Amino acid sequence: MSKAGILFVISGPSGGGKGTVVKRFRELVPDIGFSVSATTRAPRDGEEDGKDYYFVSREEFLRMIECGEMLEYNEFCGNLYGTPKKEADRAREAGVDLILEIESNGAFNVKKNYPDAVLIMLIPESMKELEERLRSRASEPEDVIVRRLATAEHEVRLAPRYDYIVVNEKDKIDECAEELVGILTAEHKKSGRMNDAVNNFLNNR
Amino acid sequence: MSKAGILFVISGPSGGGKGTVVKRFRELVPDIGFSVSATTRAPRDGEEDGKDYYFVSREEFLRMIECGEMLEYNEFCGNLYGTPKKEADRAREAGVDLILEIESNGAFNVKKNYPDAVLIMLIPESMKELEERLRSRASEPEDVIVRRLATAEHEVRLAPRYDYIVVNEKDKIDECAEELVGILTAEHKKSGRMNDAVNNFLNNR
Repeated sequence: MSKAGILFVISGPSGGGKGTVVKRFRELVPDIGFSVSATTRAPRDGEEDGKDYYFVSREEFLRMIECGEMLEYNEFCGNLYGTPKKEADRAREAGVDLILEIESNGAFNVKKNYPDAVLIMLIPESMKELEERLRSRASEPEDVIVRRLATAEHEVRLAPRYDYIVVNEKDKIDECAEELVGILTAEHKKSGRMNDAVNNFLNNR
Repeated sequence: MSKAGILFVISGPSGGGKGTVVKRFRELVPDIGFSVSATTRAPRDGEEDGKDYYFVSREEFLRMIECGEMLEYNEFCGNLYGTPKKEADRAREAGVDLILEIESNGAFNVKKNYPDAVLIMLIPESMKELEERLRSRASEPEDVIVRRLATAEHEVRLAPRYDYIVVNEKDKIDECAEELVGILTAEHKKSGRMNDAVNNFLNNR
């Protein structure tokens, strides 16, 4: 089989529960690939280079961005984090699906590099629900919460640029993860990805 | 919710096990709609007009075809069978999904009338497997079997015109039906069909 792996990109408002849903999804699809991210932050105890992260200097990270070697990246608390393009290429060539949990600019950048990547936006039921989640989980200052909500609204207005929208209803993580599994199944069955099966049908007589 | 129901069209070579898979699929998705077909054959004992079939005269059936009232139709053993367009409209307007199990010309005709219909071709693993199924199930004359195989090959070569290809592996009816469920789930989550959810998110704050 010379089937390319699918890049499965999960994005959506911060605080919307992406991490929990993706964790459950990984339990349901244990053979989905991991991508090792690159980061400029220092390794923590027990972390291995090339396994947990590729630990690189800020100069090297910026060089990778400039040379187009970084599929997407983000700055968080003064450190850069990103997905090296070679990680995606390696998985695709091995026919392994890869799930990436990234913010929307990163998602669109992945789609630009790999037009057959599948972009999924995970949203809570409502802005109200998102606000409740943000307020309940942390001791973030009011202005941070207000900024997060404004960003969320902006992101969700980009919905038409995504392939799929999945609503992460409160206390329905399993249903949500199963919907993601359904999408992955369907994407594999798209006629453009089923040439091997069609040829197999026609050639075995 | 003003969501239109999805027309879910299952097609593929005769003898490929469509009927069995669709039956299992219906068990998994019990609220999927039924479409009442029109036919020119005489009612059998206990069959009700408008419930089991719309029983119409050949003249009326031909008039419906000419007036574009028939979504797809077929002749079988001298009788005409078809799906009235109003059946599909009724289900779509009610937001009910509808599954149609029809041959490929009918499938393409549905797509022409409803570009957002979802066309799925169900194929056995191989021509060899299809031949074995055809030979095992019936006492059909050799020339009928040969013709069925030639038709199957022709149909499967039309694979790129379908949205999805699903392989109906021997003794794996459940897996196959579950793949169809995955496709239906995914189709409902396509961003173009999720406007209500997006507006609901943005407007509830």
